[in-house]
Amino acid sequence: MPEKTRITVLEEFNKPLKIREIDIPELLEGQILVKVTSAGVCGSDVHIFEGKDPRTPIPITLGHEGVGQVIKIKGQRKTVLGENVKDGDMIIWNRGVSCGKCYYCKVLHKPALCGNRWAYGIHRSINIPPFLNGCYAEHIILTENTDVILLDERDPAVYVPASCSGATSAHAFEYANINTGDTVLVQGPGPLGIFLIAFSKSAGAGNIIVVGGTQERLNMCLEFGATSIINRRTCPKDHIKDQIMSLTNGRGVDVVFEASGSLDAIVDGIPLVRVGGTYITAGFGEPSGSLQFPWFEYIIRRNLNLQGVWVSDTSHVLQATRLVQSNFETFAKMITHRFNLEDATSALDSVATRQTVKTVLMP
Amino acid sequence: MPEKTRITVLEEFNKPLKIREIDIPELLEGQILVKVTSAGVCGSDVHIFEGKDPRTPIPITLGHEGVGQVIKIKGQRKTVLGENVKDGDMIIWNRGVSCGKCYYCKVLHKPALCGNRWAYGIHRSINIPPFLNGCYAEHIILTENTDVILLDERDPAVYVPASCSGATSAHAFEYANINTGDTVLVQGPGPLGIFLIAFSKSAGAGNIIVVGGTQERLNMCLEFGATSIINRRTCPKDHIKDQIMSLTNGRGVDVVFEASGSLDAIVDGIPLVRVGGTYITAGFGEPSGSLQFPWFEYIIRRNLNLQGVWVSDTSHVLQATRLVQSNFETFAKMITHRFNLEDATSALDSVATRQTVKTVLMP
Amino acid sequence: MPEKTRITVLEEFNKPLKIREIDIPELLEGQILVKVTSAGVCGSDVHIFEGKDPRTPIPITLGHEGVGQVIKIKGQRKTVLGENVKDGDMIIWNRGVSCGKCYYCKVLHKPALCGNRWAYGIHRSINIPPFLNGCYAEHIILTENTDVILLDERDPAVYVPASCSGATSAHAFEYANINTGDTVLVQGPGPLGIFLIAFSKSAGAGNIIVVGGTQERLNMCLEFGATSIINRRTCPKDHIKDQIMSLTNGRGVDVVFEASGSLDAIVDGIPLVRVGGTYITAGFGEPSGSLQFPWFEYIIRRNLNLQGVWVSDTSHVLQATRLVQSNFETFAKMITHRFNLEDATSALDSVATRQTVKTVLMP
Amino acid sequence: MPEKTRITVLEEFNKPLKIREIDIPELLEGQILVKVTSAGVCGSDVHIFEGKDPRTPIPITLGHEGVGQVIKIKGQRKTVLGENVKDGDMIIWNRGVSCGKCYYCKVLHKPALCGNRWAYGIHRSINIPPFLNGCYAEHIILTENTDVILLDERDPAVYVPASCSGATSAHAFEYANINTGDTVLVQGPGPLGIFLIAFSKSAGAGNIIVVGGTQERLNMCLEFGATSIINRRTCPKDHIKDQIMSLTNGRGVDVVFEASGSLDAIVDGIPLVRVGGTYITAGFGEPSGSLQFPWFEYIIRRNLNLQGVWVSDTSHVLQATRLVQSNFETFAKMITHRFNLEDATSALDSVATRQTVKTVLMP
Repeated sequence: MPEKTRITVLEEFNKPLKIREIDIPELLEGQILVKVTSAGVCGSDVHIFEGKDPRTPIPITLGHEGVGQVIKIKGQRKTVLGENVKDGDMIIWNRGVSCGKCYYCKVLHKPALCGNRWAYGIHRSINIPPFLNGCYAEHIILTENTDVILLDERDPAVYVPASCSGATSAHAFEYANINTGDTVLVQGPGPLGIFLIAFSKSAGAGNIIVVGGTQERLNMCLEFGATSIINRRTCPKDHIKDQIMSLTNGRGVDVVFEASGSLDAIVDGIPLVRVGGTYITAGFGEPSGSLQFPWFEYIIRRNLNLQGVWVSDTSHVLQATRLVQSNFETFAKMITHRFNLEDATSALDSVATRQTVKTVLMP
Repeated sequence: MPEKTRITVLEEFNKPLKIREIDIPELLEGQILVKVTSAGVCGSDVHIFEGKDPRTPIPITLGHEGVGQVIKIKGQRKTVLGENVKDGDMIIWNRGVSCGKCYYCKVLHKPALCGNRWAYGIHRSINIPPFLNGCYAEHIILTENTDVILLDERDPAVYVPASCSGATSAHAFEYANINTGDTVLVQGPGPLGIFLIAFSKSAGAGNIIVVGGTQERLNMCLEFGATSIINRRTCPKDHIKDQIMSLTNGRGVDVVFEASGSLDAIVDGIPLVRVGGTYITAGFGEPSGSLQFPWFEYIIRRNLNLQGVWVSDTSHVLQATRLVQSNFETFAKMITHRFNLEDATSALDSVATRQTVKTVLMP
Repeated sequence: MPEKTRITVLEEFNKPLKIREIDIPELLEGQILVKVTSAGVCGSDVHIFEGKDPRTPIPITLGHEGVGQVIKIKGQRKTVLGENVKDGDMIIWNRGVSCGKCYYCKVLHKPALCGNRWAYGIHRSINIPPFLNGCYAEHIILTENTDVILLDERDPAVYVPASCSGATSAHAFEYANINTGDTVLVQGPGPLGIFLIAFSKSAGAGNIIVVGGTQERLNMCLEFGATSIINRRTCPKDHIKDQIMSLTNGRGVDVVFEASGSLDAIVDGIPLVRVGGTYITAGFGEPSGSLQFPWFEYIIRRNLNLQGVWVSDTSHVLQATRLVQSNFETFAKMITHRFNLEDATSALDSVATRQTVKTVLMP
Repeated sequence: MPEKTRITVLEEFNKPLKIREIDIPELLEGQILVKVTSAGVCGSDVHIFEGKDPRTPIPITLGHEGVGQVIKIKGQRKTVLGENVKDGDMIIWNRGVSCGKCYYCKVLHKPALCGNRWAYGIHRSINIPPFLNGCYAEHIILTENTDVILLDERDPAVYVPASCSGATSAHAFEYANINTGDTVLVQGPGPLGIFLIAFSKSAGAGNIIVVGGTQERLNMCLEFGATSIINRRTCPKDHIKDQIMSLTNGRGVDVVFEASGSLDAIVDGIPLVRVGGTYITAGFGEPSGSLQFPWFEYIIRRNLNLQGVWVSDTSHVLQATRLVQSNFETFAKMITHRFNLEDATSALDSVATRQTVKTVLMP
């Protein structure tokens, strides 16, 4: 077990991340010291970096998406599938830790909604033991109540998105109840949308239509199972609607997944749902203003089911991980940019400017 | 079998209904001639009367809610429970008739959403055979594909609301998944809200909170199982919220039923739902304008499930009928006003001015 | 429109089918005259042929599985997806017709369970109008309340199994609630089992294990998505169990589909389900004797969900048809034997002796 | 905080319980010392006493059902509803403790099925810290991961059954999906059956039929909402079937709850379920032999859903507690016998000989 490690630290908003060398603390019962082999850079990391989330406890090590190798375990640990965790294992983990005691955890069995849930790289500063609380670092320490899943030896970077956008997609997908041949619309061809396409395909959807604004990302969607891609920058709204109605005998789609974080997408998207269909909105991570629409026509007459999606739980991480496992070569294409730990600030910038599909750090 | 009958006719919007005596036509195979013993006056009848629904095919006999006695059947008919229908039986029926052939009827098994569905007293003028197409009349003819349910011999007026507001409530309630002890909020203490209170109580809800603007109606809610009534005209919004949060350990209610038809109710109501809870909106029968709210806070962070409700099917009429059957004395209190057929226009006026809980015609 | 057609007739049990030339009757409103391009030979046809179903109304034209071309329609007809049906269209249809009026059709929305349901080739003799009531014939007449689905122009024989084993599989699959990566066991590699494999794969199952007794059929299962095949004739039961437990971290499979029609399969299969898992039994078409097992260990301690499956409805035919559509080349391999109408008796024999995966008639 | 307490101890099977005075140990973080005000005597206690469960770790303090008053808490504890637990509070708790880490706890969200679950009074001898591990005692110590619920000040004995038979009933009831007016059959009028009657009534069931062999218990069922009681000792099976079919238009009941622990009940009961209905079996706590029935007729043709039920989780304890809360006066009648701690062996005997509905100890 090494004595020291290097972490990046956000000391001041909008200022480059600093690299610090710090001591690795003694592990407590059940804790796991993990060498981070790959850490994902998420859009919400950019928002934290920019100081848009006022609750951020600086100084903090960012990074809630990670994959790594077990260096040392204090005591014995099992994965959520019941395997023993051993030194040297490659693992992924649930980025969030729920309390296991509250109404959401114990009565409703919805740990994602636990009011006491905290996430690595988001809620705990570098001053909270065990100090190694974020993935933009050479090492991280997983607490005793962090759920872990074994991976194989393939490129760890490919698994990274399963821990956040993949898991949130699995959560969103849980509400969809796709039947073989159903028509799905995905709004937003980013990582979240790509996972939703892959889940939809894996669940037997027929038409999988994607609407987005970046042609390269739309093209990539075809590899994940999209059957129609529509660029909203070049295709007028009326044409989009006509295309979708013509694919669905004039009824509209069975399920829309909103994965864009755009209020316009919602106002445009609900009228594309068939009567009795479902609109699932998962693309927002923070307050984004108000929107306006007619209630009777959008919700009532359509007998619409609308579902908001907030984060995810361990079952979702497992499903996303399995989806990547069985479509590994395709998901490998999603990882378009890799950076060293030293270049973490540049990595954040690459996401902020939407140059990439998925950026990862390889510490 | 009588040769003639009397019907009311809306010949011109906003003009008093005329009474006409017309011939009863020969029945076709499967048709049932029914003597209307009680017909409900619904809020949407007022809107039709006022010409607010431009599709209304005048001249028309209004009345989609009805209970009556079987006078004559051409051929054999069974109820949806499999009993033979006989002359003299008291019956209630599904006010809407779905096509039984389309995607909604045959694939999704949601006949309420059938695009070809039509309803007595709404869609067919007096010029469409068999001409007796509305309940504001001495007789009505039920077509071969109209679903019927047997009643007992008790006051037929009490059963009338089961055919429209009761059935729509049953449809709304289907989405609620109440567990024993859950907290429910009902917005709007009219017939729809009263049925939702009774369904909630019958499903084991704990707290059943009702918010409304008419004290007499709120008082009546107590008899149907409401545990708290709040008059929004006298109680400030903050106090309403405080009361509800204090009843729910600060979480908010498990399910809200919107039964008010008010856009303000929605903006006020969604923040009262707990994280992961459900908002069911059933109170709108026609276009009513737009509303505005913040998406992230209302829908995403709350992981909200929002369900719009449009009309109902035969299973819902059956459930509402059974609810009335087992709480007959209580539901009898809901019928506050009765009118003769000759006074149908006055009956409409009593509903338009909200003087009543439920008005029925006794032809 | 032709004036005459040729049908096969079962006049006496266990005697060769006779070919008769008969007049095509005048069509009634809504009826469709169809040229049968391909008819499936089902295991239950063999049982009917052998007189094992005492209710069989001979003389009868067998054949409940069919695909054909529209020759003439009386009036207008739409598919369940809302398309107009036209002369020359290739179609498949629901082999069963439910009454649309009973408790199952109107209240429970489960038309497969309708007590008045009848099926082509099973319930109506050649003496019941419109006389062309089975698929082992050059033409069949579909009644006004038979649900139809459009096909494309590809080999019609490949679609035939969707109408019976495919549809029943879709019904069985409806109870499974597969999550991405779940482990499925299919008992019986016949047409029913093959569809269940394909549905499981299409729904994202991880391990799909098949146990059967015919190596050729097991080999074919690999093409449909099976990940492990086990020949129960050569692999001892203990080894089967060990293999399955080792694939599932010792828990057992999430879902078993029984598609074998063997009572032994049930006794062997239930202990392979994990605690809280599901056993779906769809392989029996007729009384097959009793079986014995310990209730506490099999059902209670395992918190088992066990689901029996009886026939199917139109939504299931649609799903099976869509599954074939999107995996056409693979499903084409399932059609191992084709016969002329004249050789229908030999076709039945090929099924009785299990020489084939799927036998079809090409009239 | 007292220094000593008295516990009963099963030192040898079938020998009277001994009373021992022992030291109360120092509490660890999160532990709660509870004064047992009322402990339930369960049928399974009798089996443990008789040595029929070979895994029993003697010497043991029996008693998995309990209600008590908080004497002292080490640190802070909240109820699963989020209230702070304080000295003097009356509480009930989940008798079982799941691990919170395994596939059942973290992926399937079914903690009742956790393979590491242990229960007070069943799995831990008096030699395992904190030693006070059973309810047949003056005090018990609840571990940090035991879920607690606040009660009011009413007679604690009435709440006791909620912790075991009530919770198991809530679990069984979760699978039932009762619609307003559905017909339910309960087999077995003991505590489990009585809770199932009360849950069925509270969920709006119409006919609630109970079949049992003890007239006094059957009579008590009427107070909890049974609409028909049938004594199987005096009513021939054919008459039972005739009665039930006549109450259900010949269809059979929507849901049967088996709460009898009798294999005969199953063989008799499944044919009373309507096609497409549900049979839920919750009455067995230990191996009870095999049973035999015809698969096609019982399971397939009936499209039966059969659900085994094993123990319960915290959500079920909460629901059962709420059910008792809102029907307190009725549930009070269920507590037919009370004993002192000194008479615990006699209390076991009263249950073994079925003289009682529910026996409780009042330490």
